[in-house]
Amino acid sequence: MTGIPSEILSRLQNGDLIAAIAQDASTGEVLMLAWMNEESLIKTLQTKQATYWSRSRNKIWLKGESSGHFQEVKSIFFDCDADALLLKVNQTGAACHTGEVSCFHNKIELK
Amino acid sequence: MTGIPSEILSRLQNGDLIAAIAQDASTGEVLMLAWMNEESLIKTLQTKQATYWSRSRNKIWLKGESSGHFQEVKSIFFDCDADALLLKVNQTGAACHTGEVSCFHNKIELK
Repeated sequence: MTGIPSEILSRLQNGDLIAAIAQDASTGEVLMLAWMNEESLIKTLQTKQATYWSRSRNKIWLKGESSGHFQEVKSIFFDCDADALLLKVNQTGAACHTGEVSCFHNKIELK
Repeated sequence: MTGIPSEILSRLQNGDLIAAIAQDASTGEVLMLAWMNEESLIKTLQTKQATYWSRSRNKIWLKGESSGHFQEVKSIFFDCDADALLLKVNQTGAACHTGEVSCFHNKIELK
């Protein structure tokens, strides 16, 4: 048993990726949006370290494997149509490769 | 001028959709993940009411148009690779059609 709900498992086994939002478990700051396939979600559940599917590199990606900026997963939620995940994490260092805490550090000005 | 950064505009004009995370501006709770096309992002910027692209209904969708549960947009951020948006919103009523505050109300148990 993987512990993955059947609605999500069936999507992943169909080859779909699922969007995963990482949120800082302490501050509530939204850190990044990444993608998971079945293998990455299973690894995340097994290791409690956020592991994604890199669409650009086409491979499994343990967040922090090169930067050391790991995400320890405290809890995972899925949404009402079972096509997105919310991970609450303890972030080591910065989530963004630019050094910013969050990848969402660029503002669009509202008029 | 739309006010949309060129990296995002070029994606949207290429026909791509962009993921949009809605977060409660007061509580920090992540409410939902939805999608935007160019028209919906322009409408969102013009009206300051979150407007998405419904992939299931294949049409523009003013959040709250049927439920009354509008999202007043306080700020918008985009991420470092310009393929996701973060909207900080004042949510009227529940974000989720189930009546839950957040669409992310289903937990995946960690071992």
